Amino acid sequence: MRLLAFLDDNGRPTLGARDGNSVIHLTAEGHPATLEALLHLGEDGLDRVRATIAGKSVRRVPLDQIVWLPPLLNPSKAFGIGLNYSDHAREIGATPPPYPVIFQRFPSSWVAHGQAMIQPRLSTQFDYEAELVAVIGKAGRDIPRERALEHVAGYSIFNDGTVRDYQARSHQWLWGKNFDASGGFGPEFVSADELPPGAQGLNVQCRLNGQVLQDGNTRDMIFDVAALVSACSEGISLQPGDMIFTGTPAGVGFVRQPPVWLRPGDVCEVEIEGIGTLRNPIAAQA
Amino acid sequence: MRLLAFLDDNGRPTLGARDGNSVIHLTAEGHPATLEALLHLGEDGLDRVRATIAGKSVRRVPLDQIVWLPPLLNPSKAFGIGLNYSDHAREIGATPPPYPVIFQRFPSSWVAHGQAMIQPRLSTQFDYEAELVAVIGKAGRDIPRERALEHVAGYSIFNDGTVRDYQARSHQWLWGKNFDASGGFGPEFVSADELPPGAQGLNVQCRLNGQVLQDGNTRDMIFDVAALVSACSEGISLQPGDMIFTGTPAGVGFVRQPPVWLRPGDVCEVEIEGIGTLRNPIAAQA
Repeated sequence: MRLLAFLDDNGRPTLGARDGNSVIHLTAEGHPATLEALLHLGEDGLDRVRATIAGKSVRRVPLDQIVWLPPLLNPSKAFGIGLNYSDHAREIGATPPPYPVIFQRFPSSWVAHGQAMIQPRLSTQFDYEAELVAVIGKAGRDIPRERALEHVAGYSIFNDGTVRDYQARSHQWLWGKNFDASGGFGPEFVSADELPPGAQGLNVQCRLNGQVLQDGNTRDMIFDVAALVSACSEGISLQPGDMIFTGTPAGVGFVRQPPVWLRPGDVCEVEIEGIGTLRNPIAAQA
Repeated sequence: MRLLAFLDDNGRPTLGARDGNSVIHLTAEGHPATLEALLHLGEDGLDRVRATIAGKSVRRVPLDQIVWLPPLLNPSKAFGIGLNYSDHAREIGATPPPYPVIFQRFPSSWVAHGQAMIQPRLSTQFDYEAELVAVIGKAGRDIPRERALEHVAGYSIFNDGTVRDYQARSHQWLWGKNFDASGGFGPEFVSADELPPGAQGLNVQCRLNGQVLQDGNTRDMIFDVAALVSACSEGISLQPGDMIFTGTPAGVGFVRQPPVWLRPGDVCEVEIEGIGTLRNPIAAQA
């Protein structure tokens, strides 16, 4: 099942399911208007969506006519994970961490598939990071690793766009990770049953103007999805719709010689095998 | 103007204004049910509340009968500021930072005045931090320091309860700052016009079971409220209801010899001159 958020004809957030080149208008069929709300209904809600998709004569919209929204607009928590691929930890001179390195992105920091990621006026050091996103479907706290994947509803793609000089202003990364519209999220949410357990073994690629700059595989995560869900739930209750960005493989821009920065006019793509391709142009701050 | 959030007779979040020992039921008088919603109405909304407070025959509730809620339940952003008093930076062996050190707390990590802050099962290293909170009233981005206080609607009190061993698991502090119900927030929101500009020169005290453990003054912040609002808005749009915790003075528990930890049965109070006293018992995780 591939779900996506878009604007309906009246400019309201709407939930859809992709079926080839068309989108089933789930909200018009009586389902919630957001993925967050759907996930709060639990397995029942997802099963009812599956039934709608399998049914006939549902209202459809052509895929190439929709205005995309990020799959999630208002999660209660969005955890970023740093240094989670050893080749990336190595390239920036960091030791592989003994525990997951957890920071936060605010929803105001990301845009949808096809929308422009914004290079801010304040900095030219605007970098890409290709990442798998795990989306929580079932609430829980202190979840053991062995049961953690039961709490994951599905996966998506994130470009963890980072303003490097602001990230480096202190040892806390929040600032440089949260510039308005600096990240990309989407295009779709893919339910967990369509992917290998824990989304393991998937190629992750970042391309800038067609050139491959990151080329990794989710099997090389230091902490896999189950370990990350378990860790993020230690002491902190996870809710349906919470997101975990799982870290980026080697090849980011700021450690290259010379450095590669995102610039207005560029097009940045993140592709994850079996999930899709997130494409964002880069634009200057208006 | 002193605003507070509480549960009405039907268990719904409600907005009130304190008037001595009674609470004016603002929501019953046609005002929004939350401080976030009120702040989104801008100065007009606050002025209408002032008019209601000044009016006669408004519905009142005795202060000692309310069930408190945190003044804000769902801000779009809650920025924590680390190492913002030089005496505290010194006591933990840190250099005063050249830029504000910014991290995040999720709303699930705080409770209201009078509610128990929860010592988790996973750790005994549960520490207090007395802090002034600035609440944003007017949206803005890249706000110059000279105009920053125009964006602050008012102030409150935060106990930035921290699970130290989890905070130290990596260089990113999020984990140990976000355990469920580990912080306290309240009791009230005090509008900026009732305090000195930038809430400067106010005594900040933390008492554990009556013993004074922190005794500072907001004038000793490294970055004052105006500087923090300006910094947090660099690249990041602030919205009405966004919160900035402004850091804690010296005297936290984990650097004491022997260390002082919050334990079930303790009562922790944070008092800020002109704002009030936030009181939270400590309870064990159920």
